[in-house]
Amino acid sequence: MTLRLPSSIKALIFDAYGTLFDVQSLQVFLEEQFGEKADAINAVWRQKQLQYTWLRSLMGRYTPFSSVTADALRYACQEEGLSLTQEMEEELVQRYYTLAAFEEVKESLARLSESFVLAVLSNADEAMLSNAVMHNRLNSFLSHVLSVNPILKYKPLPEVYTLPLQAMNLKHEEVAFISSNTWDVAGAKSFGLRVIWLNRYGGRMEELGIEADWVTADLRHIVRT
Amino acid sequence: MTLRLPSSIKALIFDAYGTLFDVQSLQVFLEEQFGEKADAINAVWRQKQLQYTWLRSLMGRYTPFSSVTADALRYACQEEGLSLTQEMEEELVQRYYTLAAFEEVKESLARLSESFVLAVLSNADEAMLSNAVMHNRLNSFLSHVLSVNPILKYKPLPEVYTLPLQAMNLKHEEVAFISSNTWDVAGAKSFGLRVIWLNRYGGRMEELGIEADWVTADLRHIVRT
Repeated sequence: MTLRLPSSIKALIFDAYGTLFDVQSLQVFLEEQFGEKADAINAVWRQKQLQYTWLRSLMGRYTPFSSVTADALRYACQEEGLSLTQEMEEELVQRYYTLAAFEEVKESLARLSESFVLAVLSNADEAMLSNAVMHNRLNSFLSHVLSVNPILKYKPLPEVYTLPLQAMNLKHEEVAFISSNTWDVAGAKSFGLRVIWLNRYGGRMEELGIEADWVTADLRHIVRT
Repeated sequence: MTLRLPSSIKALIFDAYGTLFDVQSLQVFLEEQFGEKADAINAVWRQKQLQYTWLRSLMGRYTPFSSVTADALRYACQEEGLSLTQEMEEELVQRYYTLAAFEEVKESLARLSESFVLAVLSNADEAMLSNAVMHNRLNSFLSHVLSVNPILKYKPLPEVYTLPLQAMNLKHEEVAFISSNTWDVAGAKSFGLRVIWLNRYGGRMEELGIEADWVTADLRHIVRT
């Protein structure tokens, strides 16, 4: 199960949502608000959130992830025939700022930070992202917390994946990118990074003709050679 | 119900799948092959087909729509735990070449062609698209049948929507673009065309801050002023 990374790799770049932070951790709150429709709301919310980042990148109409997240939530609630007050919308989007990390994240980042330089690269805007990092007390393990916001483009545009290389002054081959999101795995690999697919739930890779270099189900399995 | 277009509009540009051609017309064949999983297969197939065009455009990894369609079908079958032979894959993708038009399409195009220049702009590659046009005997009403294939990019990238303007030597304001696909409505409108959303099933517009100029449920409602 152990995944030994080659010694050429100096830095690990983590995706945020689904990889470090668990969007399912909103489930209890969603059930309190929406009852049996919570599952549907959560699924459509996430699906539209992703779609809107892709469509906005294609159309050249970037808006920050926090507003895309609110837009997607409104769509999900309308789709499911639920009313959404302005207060509830703000409350739910605000919860993205304090999403819980997956259980093994903190201990894994603590350990990995002894062998690698660690960073995050996320579609989220800076405030959203740094709040989630602070809330889960991951900041001391991360040398860089990078948002796409400065370049006004979303993953999987190739330009986005250059951000950590530039910020950390690293070459492609010195980095491993880690994501649970299959389309993000494809994007990073397509750009030219080596990629670890963190496949937590036994999912299926996209049929894009692109495969991860490594696959693991748990961050605890990753070690330095 | 009648939608009277202003006299400035000289040409109507139609999207293909979902707008002229009914992807649901595969349903009977899918049920013969996949039984009660036909609905799920069809839904995931279409969802992944769209996703893969967006992701490939973002990653700069264009492949023709016929192969994206095959990729998406393979994903859908694996997701639903169904085996798919090479023959069945080819058979199903081939059915996209002879998709049935919606019932009002032929009579509507015949009538509209008396008042407007008509064209199609589609993600599909030329063979796929011209076959579907011929199969439904729409060719005599269409002055141009345009695939994105020559520019190796998919909707909703802005460049794609310039194709009909260039091919037909028309200005933005002389054209109305017609699509049933909400993301395509947004893309064409974002580019600067006037857009008719053909909302056949009472669907919901995307929360992208972009609205169609006109909405109609049926091509029979569109008339020249």
